[in-house]
Amino acid sequence: MIIVLKKNPQPEQMNRLITWLESMNIAVHSIQGETQTVLGLVGDTTHVDPEMLRALDIVADARRIQEPYPNASRRLHEDDTIIPVGDTQVGGGVFSVIAGPCSIESEEQICEVARAVKRSGATMLRGGAFKPRTSPYTFQGLRGHGLEMLLEAKRITELPVVTEIMDLSQLDLFDEVDVIQVGARNMQNFELLKELGHTGKPILIKRGLSSTLQELLMSAEYVMAGGNDQIILCERGIRTFETATRNTLDLAAVPMLKKMTHLPVIVDPSHATGVSWLVKPMAMAAVACGADGLMIEVHNDPSRALCDGAQSLKPEEFDDVMQSVRAILPYAFQRTGG
Amino acid sequence: MIIVLKKNPQPEQMNRLITWLESMNIAVHSIQGETQTVLGLVGDTTHVDPEMLRALDIVADARRIQEPYPNASRRLHEDDTIIPVGDTQVGGGVFSVIAGPCSIESEEQICEVARAVKRSGATMLRGGAFKPRTSPYTFQGLRGHGLEMLLEAKRITELPVVTEIMDLSQLDLFDEVDVIQVGARNMQNFELLKELGHTGKPILIKRGLSSTLQELLMSAEYVMAGGNDQIILCERGIRTFETATRNTLDLAAVPMLKKMTHLPVIVDPSHATGVSWLVKPMAMAAVACGADGLMIEVHNDPSRALCDGAQSLKPEEFDDVMQSVRAILPYAFQRTGG
Amino acid sequence: MIIVLKKNPQPEQMNRLITWLESMNIAVHSIQGETQTVLGLVGDTTHVDPEMLRALDIVADARRIQEPYPNASRRLHEDDTIIPVGDTQVGGGVFSVIAGPCSIESEEQICEVARAVKRSGATMLRGGAFKPRTSPYTFQGLRGHGLEMLLEAKRITELPVVTEIMDLSQLDLFDEVDVIQVGARNMQNFELLKELGHTGKPILIKRGLSSTLQELLMSAEYVMAGGNDQIILCERGIRTFETATRNTLDLAAVPMLKKMTHLPVIVDPSHATGVSWLVKPMAMAAVACGADGLMIEVHNDPSRALCDGAQSLKPEEFDDVMQSVRAILPYAFQRTGG
Amino acid sequence: MIIVLKKNPQPEQMNRLITWLESMNIAVHSIQGETQTVLGLVGDTTHVDPEMLRALDIVADARRIQEPYPNASRRLHEDDTIIPVGDTQVGGGVFSVIAGPCSIESEEQICEVARAVKRSGATMLRGGAFKPRTSPYTFQGLRGHGLEMLLEAKRITELPVVTEIMDLSQLDLFDEVDVIQVGARNMQNFELLKELGHTGKPILIKRGLSSTLQELLMSAEYVMAGGNDQIILCERGIRTFETATRNTLDLAAVPMLKKMTHLPVIVDPSHATGVSWLVKPMAMAAVACGADGLMIEVHNDPSRALCDGAQSLKPEEFDDVMQSVRAILPYAFQRTGG
Repeated sequence: MIIVLKKNPQPEQMNRLITWLESMNIAVHSIQGETQTVLGLVGDTTHVDPEMLRALDIVADARRIQEPYPNASRRLHEDDTIIPVGDTQVGGGVFSVIAGPCSIESEEQICEVARAVKRSGATMLRGGAFKPRTSPYTFQGLRGHGLEMLLEAKRITELPVVTEIMDLSQLDLFDEVDVIQVGARNMQNFELLKELGHTGKPILIKRGLSSTLQELLMSAEYVMAGGNDQIILCERGIRTFETATRNTLDLAAVPMLKKMTHLPVIVDPSHATGVSWLVKPMAMAAVACGADGLMIEVHNDPSRALCDGAQSLKPEEFDDVMQSVRAILPYAFQRTGG
Repeated sequence: MIIVLKKNPQPEQMNRLITWLESMNIAVHSIQGETQTVLGLVGDTTHVDPEMLRALDIVADARRIQEPYPNASRRLHEDDTIIPVGDTQVGGGVFSVIAGPCSIESEEQICEVARAVKRSGATMLRGGAFKPRTSPYTFQGLRGHGLEMLLEAKRITELPVVTEIMDLSQLDLFDEVDVIQVGARNMQNFELLKELGHTGKPILIKRGLSSTLQELLMSAEYVMAGGNDQIILCERGIRTFETATRNTLDLAAVPMLKKMTHLPVIVDPSHATGVSWLVKPMAMAAVACGADGLMIEVHNDPSRALCDGAQSLKPEEFDDVMQSVRAILPYAFQRTGG
Repeated sequence: MIIVLKKNPQPEQMNRLITWLESMNIAVHSIQGETQTVLGLVGDTTHVDPEMLRALDIVADARRIQEPYPNASRRLHEDDTIIPVGDTQVGGGVFSVIAGPCSIESEEQICEVARAVKRSGATMLRGGAFKPRTSPYTFQGLRGHGLEMLLEAKRITELPVVTEIMDLSQLDLFDEVDVIQVGARNMQNFELLKELGHTGKPILIKRGLSSTLQELLMSAEYVMAGGNDQIILCERGIRTFETATRNTLDLAAVPMLKKMTHLPVIVDPSHATGVSWLVKPMAMAAVACGADGLMIEVHNDPSRALCDGAQSLKPEEFDDVMQSVRAILPYAFQRTGG
Repeated sequence: MIIVLKKNPQPEQMNRLITWLESMNIAVHSIQGETQTVLGLVGDTTHVDPEMLRALDIVADARRIQEPYPNASRRLHEDDTIIPVGDTQVGGGVFSVIAGPCSIESEEQICEVARAVKRSGATMLRGGAFKPRTSPYTFQGLRGHGLEMLLEAKRITELPVVTEIMDLSQLDLFDEVDVIQVGARNMQNFELLKELGHTGKPILIKRGLSSTLQELLMSAEYVMAGGNDQIILCERGIRTFETATRNTLDLAAVPMLKKMTHLPVIVDPSHATGVSWLVKPMAMAAVACGADGLMIEVHNDPSRALCDGAQSLKPEEFDDVMQSVRAILPYAFQRTGG
């Protein structure tokens, strides 16, 4: 860690700072510039808060050299993490496609969609039982009953299932769930993350709407600090000033995350764009820049035919996306030809 | 609600849409433009999701005319909500000042700070027992023990106390807490909000880092839908591209929120700016534009003298801020002279 | 255009509004809701400013149904615009690659880079003679002399050249330039755009750091309104809260723009990411989602070998990117297999 | 400047870097950490580009300690800059109020507004002759004729005038203009800024919609580098995800800028908020946190009575704002009582 002191710091304040740092077994090296003094810290600074340092009267700036996420960092774990899920896996060269409806509406619906997406080549089934909705007056999901329907679809299709948890109190219901999803709005629900660190289950963490990549990795670190290193990261769009799309899909986050961490990185083009016709090009772009997988909404409910065009794809549209994805995959970044 | 159809919609799709809307007892009026058709919806559209409508093949745009937050809306509740807290209140012309340390560190610390801020005129005491920290390796708060220390400080000073809840499982510990705070990171923790709707306690909801004012009101609506209308809203800065300050304090949110809703609105200049010397000018600006109160961090721990300059003010600095606040208050927007 | 009136508007104000609209030959249809009145405008509303309407006492909201960019709109021009440049073209199925150094530093440098990028398959040469720099103390470009060097490289390689204009006063120097670039910082330099509308030359407009897609199209409309419809749009990253990359490359803008407009859309992964190792994956992603071309920085100056790794690629790195681009192109969105 | 090297840099690359830096008369001090090496640069690093350094293969990070804006920096010029304008001044304790219409529409209009705002206490008159509009189809201003009308209003009221320049070619027309305004969209029109550095006139620079405070100061530095140090900075709102207000007024920028620079800082609440009823509270907040002045739109055209409620205030509304501003001013930050 580097600490830049302000012009002419009071010697006693500077000594207090150095003594305090040394009391934490951190070696302090100083360089005197013409107008500035800089302190170079050597040792374990994991517990030193740069923001607190920056706040000191005598400090002009302080910044970390090493990442504050030792478990998630690629630097300390060069090899890609591979996460076994049922008979498949996430990462390690396998391309994962998690598909299914936004909400589980009935056993018929989830099972029908499950069969359809499996036919098209999905490796996992998604479906929401607990739904975070901005309005208390809109459908909140079938909750426990929805989970049962999802598990029935799992039995029928043998697809591993991914579904979102909204609160710790729901954890007991997730025993047979293969991958527990932490939604964007819960990405910094630290009590939830801590508890998930004690489950043996793979955790899919969605990037928060206004979370930096480092914050996403810090949330992964919360789970990993509890002993669970089966984390899947998911880019799903960030909030910007642009309103033409619901969110701004940050695809550079894919290669950047894969450089920062050894954890697998997937992309959700459905939520990021909010419209179904954008799912295909953005899914293809995500494949091209090296994503380990996709998470795509597929809907199939004749009574909601009105919804054609929503961010959810119809099974035949999803099948078309899968064909394009399979065609482009061999030429993707860091695969053959990429 | 207004629905703008795309050019030359297929009649049967348009009829399906109209039939579906009418099936929800919504009257549909249409106007034919030269190139466009527009549908005007009359009736209770609370349960109609504009985003879903926008997703329809034949829909170019759909937008709500009435706010989706009937309980929080000023339109349906013209009078300001006044929230009694202990012997004081929030809103209704009383200016609230909630002051105290970021984290409760010891009984001595919290009690000393409590006495100091009371002397300077604070109306409530704040102190964090459960701390949301981005790193799992930094101090997470004294949790239950911290709450006991906070309640001891309450007994000694008779100041009502405000502290943050991070998870439903902690709720039982908050019996004697006067105001339960929902932090920015939990603003859309809907399970938590729902449950807080069944407590009889005032809830202070902090605006999320990337939440719109409407989303903040929707979160308030979650609590109000449960029957609890004692909500205090808090602007604490939003995340933007600017890095000179930790966050961007959105003060226009104060008069805007007070037009949108009848709920009291306070401002936290400490977290918004991240540096103590900015707390005073921004506190004064918040008062000037009509805030109902302030939430300010005050720290007092000789052993952390190094922290002078942090976002937390020293008691004497807080006293100075209070003098400026008292001086400017009579001239604030919508008070005498304002 | 749709105008939503506030609750219980004063009749005389409403009549004044309607009379004023009708005075502009706009037919006004009104629908009475239980609590709201909505006006539907039919006719040419190009000259009506929704923002002004929204500001009226009696207006709750006003929004345009038709795009304010009639010349740039896909709706009124279904076919893709194809822009001939020298012996090549932009759009219409030809994939354009504009490559070259950020700044022209010497005739040797620009000619050497030009030969190299041509060998690797670039279709056009880029090079900056007039450089917008945030600091007045950093290199401002070789200006007129730089243009001469660029034109010499054009003569030698027969590659069409693209270079940035910073001010109208420079226009005379651009006679032999094939494509005039308007930089992100000048995207809303309307006097410049107007004048460029009177040149017969293709104009490459880069999206501003905080410009919406509609604003980008409005800037294109400025040029087109002057009679010049040879516009190339370039996505080059927007400014967000994320700091892991220099800007956030908004690739969904590619398919979205191609739906909104008939103009060709290219992507600049060099400026968007700011680091050379991200250029390849993001270039591949841009191809995958349907971009009509790429703009890539290529540098080659042994004396600046220190700069290896900058956002500029070395010729051999560019050649590698081109191979991957050629490999993935046939499988891109809306091409064979896509 | 501080350079953090990557783990195990190649010695020859590191030596090349050090030699190159020393060749610029910069002394390089290095500290060896366990896993990292850091270089501390001492000397004039004004011409070293941190972004270029960050791009080097062996560099993990590089950051400047000294501001890159020596002329604008408070550090090197402790005293506030005072800018004389006609019989008044900006800065130095005088509170400036620049008021007038968005656009000059007629001599009657500008003169009538001028008389009205002078009566209410405005110190300068504003009015737009050259109007940057996002649409080429909307009113572009009366241009030269507008300037003549503005100067007539100056003669009649003896108020100094402020008006926007959009292009260098217009400069000759600005001889009798007292303060030349550079609009938000031109804040990084560097050719324009350079030229304005050679005029003897005060320049009012508006912060760009997505410009950081440092970028605003760099634009001021462009003018100052040319020899003109009469710069007035204006905060007018930044672009964020929030849509409840047109822009997000960043009032913390006021005390922050006044700490960073010696130049006067004013606030434009009209453009920032986009609605007239927000102008008063935000003007009061701007005064409270220490702004040196305000820029407010005042309109007065009976034939446009429809426009009541726009971001422009009616003269009587402006008079009311001025009364509140005068009342709160003595209690503002860093004035008596503040």
